[in-house]
Amino acid sequence: MTVTAPKGFRAAGVAAGLKSSGKPDVALVVNDGPSDVAAAVFTTNRCKANPVLWSEQVMADRRAKAVVLNSGGANCYTGPTGFQTTHASAELVAQRLGTGAGDVVVCSTGLIGEQLDRAALSTGIESAVEALSEDGGPAAADAIMTTDTRSKQAVREGTGYTIGGIAKGAGMLAPALATMLVVVTTDAVVDAETADRALRAATGATFDRLDSDGCMSTNDTVLLMCSGASGTTPEAEEFTSLLTEVCHDLAQQLLRDAEGSEHDIAIDVINAATEDDALTVGRAIARSNLFKTAVFGKDPNWGRILAAVGTTDATFDPAALDVAFNGVWICRGGEPGESRDAVDLSNREVTVTVDLKAGEQSATIWTNDLTHAYVHENSAYST
Amino acid sequence: MTVTAPKGFRAAGVAAGLKSSGKPDVALVVNDGPSDVAAAVFTTNRCKANPVLWSEQVMADRRAKAVVLNSGGANCYTGPTGFQTTHASAELVAQRLGTGAGDVVVCSTGLIGEQLDRAALSTGIESAVEALSEDGGPAAADAIMTTDTRSKQAVREGTGYTIGGIAKGAGMLAPALATMLVVVTTDAVVDAETADRALRAATGATFDRLDSDGCMSTNDTVLLMCSGASGTTPEAEEFTSLLTEVCHDLAQQLLRDAEGSEHDIAIDVINAATEDDALTVGRAIARSNLFKTAVFGKDPNWGRILAAVGTTDATFDPAALDVAFNGVWICRGGEPGESRDAVDLSNREVTVTVDLKAGEQSATIWTNDLTHAYVHENSAYST
Repeated sequence: MTVTAPKGFRAAGVAAGLKSSGKPDVALVVNDGPSDVAAAVFTTNRCKANPVLWSEQVMADRRAKAVVLNSGGANCYTGPTGFQTTHASAELVAQRLGTGAGDVVVCSTGLIGEQLDRAALSTGIESAVEALSEDGGPAAADAIMTTDTRSKQAVREGTGYTIGGIAKGAGMLAPALATMLVVVTTDAVVDAETADRALRAATGATFDRLDSDGCMSTNDTVLLMCSGASGTTPEAEEFTSLLTEVCHDLAQQLLRDAEGSEHDIAIDVINAATEDDALTVGRAIARSNLFKTAVFGKDPNWGRILAAVGTTDATFDPAALDVAFNGVWICRGGEPGESRDAVDLSNREVTVTVDLKAGEQSATIWTNDLTHAYVHENSAYST
Repeated sequence: MTVTAPKGFRAAGVAAGLKSSGKPDVALVVNDGPSDVAAAVFTTNRCKANPVLWSEQVMADRRAKAVVLNSGGANCYTGPTGFQTTHASAELVAQRLGTGAGDVVVCSTGLIGEQLDRAALSTGIESAVEALSEDGGPAAADAIMTTDTRSKQAVREGTGYTIGGIAKGAGMLAPALATMLVVVTTDAVVDAETADRALRAATGATFDRLDSDGCMSTNDTVLLMCSGASGTTPEAEEFTSLLTEVCHDLAQQLLRDAEGSEHDIAIDVINAATEDDALTVGRAIARSNLFKTAVFGKDPNWGRILAAVGTTDATFDPAALDVAFNGVWICRGGEPGESRDAVDLSNREVTVTVDLKAGEQSATIWTNDLTHAYVHENSAYST
């Protein structure tokens, strides 16, 4: 039931013809209240898409009554005309729902540099309003897919309240935020400050630690809407924890569906002087094309890991570093350790552990391998 | 004639069995003087190979009488045993040449994490000393190749003096320094301070602006040796300019031979507020896998360029950016400009121009596309 699992929400997903495939491409999620508290995190890319520019304004008051999302076009680098399309979409949704455009978040995903078909989008929005239903979450999840091979959905039950979410994203996954759209709903009673803090904490520990291909998107949006319909007011800590679970679940689904990937790689950096050091080292490894191609080739090439670690300013002694693949410590003290032959990289899940021996902090970054299929998919995407 | 084109140098390249192919793998370049002034630039990777750790010490006095180079093994992450191998190589060369080990630079390239065969290397060094010749430059260039498909050589004539160079490198090409070994010789009379300044200026404008795959090596070394045998003392500015020409020539040869590449891409960033801004933006684009796969697919995907530009802190207005492929301005003011159909990416050479409209500085970064062959070569390299 995803975003319609919590009370107080309706959703829909319809086909508006924005995708040449004719598949669903417009989604609508409506918060029927009683509360309209919301929080959002957007891409930090300075070249932002029009829907992000719009939605940042909408979220200034930390309230939202609806979000309309489309696939089939990112409405990015489309100038004032594109911004007007976004504005018109919000106006239309607001008019049909009897609210103001300033309460309607807009998200778009797909190709950049092309105008959306405003008439088709409008027709789709009309259909989506008609189709709104308390069972509409999965349809909304389907309608935001682009190169995703499956829709991403998650639900967690708290004590007296529920959190549900949908996500899309399969490439351009990198901090801050993967290339993705995420809508999370809850019927918990949450104030705006708590919602904002909880969402930032949850995304910081999940989506922000996913670095599939090092490329930061222009459209990333994570939206949390809180209806308060359950009447339950959870403790902030408990709520944050459950929200983080939902975000983690969705992030792992994004990882497993990353374009062309054959391996999901968890990079555990342990015994770092600071958590920032651990994250810096993890990200440096996740961005090494040589490391990522080696994993594709099922080659536990720890030398390429040390070469990536060596580009960072983290605290460590190069002659003290240990590296393990799937628990086999094939590098000890910066030299060959256990036999590489003991490492089996035939499974999709791979864990790399780097021991910095510099402190007590740790962090995990998730990435994928770099494959022929990635090159194929991304060299052929827009032609 | 490469490194033996200038007077006062002898060189050799021999097969010592370090490469399983049986191809030449040990090179020696000797400066017979009268001067032994030298300058060097090393990788900034903190996880350095043993020969780099050794050679940094050798170069502390800015003097060197010889450099011994081997392919077939990087002697990196091989611990004290590996360092002893490097030391023993320098001692052996010094003994045969009648000098001290502290005058012998050592460079290694090849697989990391494996010990070099010290006995084979020693035998190779003995053979190389025997083979030293005033025509030995090309043989030395051949002996340092790894995945290079051709050797890299350059010579330029100054007024009364000559500069010659050899290089190897085909992957792990990124600042600071591409993964590469470069030896440049000159018979000009140059003092240590001038040699150091000239080499830093030349590498900063050439090798440092080459970013083939974003991966920084552990073994990079650029060595300049000055014999003074011509008796000519050039002006520092003229010498720096000619040295930069030699380095540029070698850097372009590296670019054209980058592993699996099908396109050489010059990223010209113009009208930047500062040269640093121009370099930062160029490097961000050069590291975007999505951009690089698009070029492989002959797709002038300017949206992926703006997405990369947007990750930087350079001065620009996102709504003012112009982007051209091969001179066709397909993005104007952050929106679609001239038709994409006017862009032909079928040639190997591609020029991307990004106009930041923020000042008067400019810089060029060179990179390659990301191809199936790159993935293939780097997923199979060590297995």
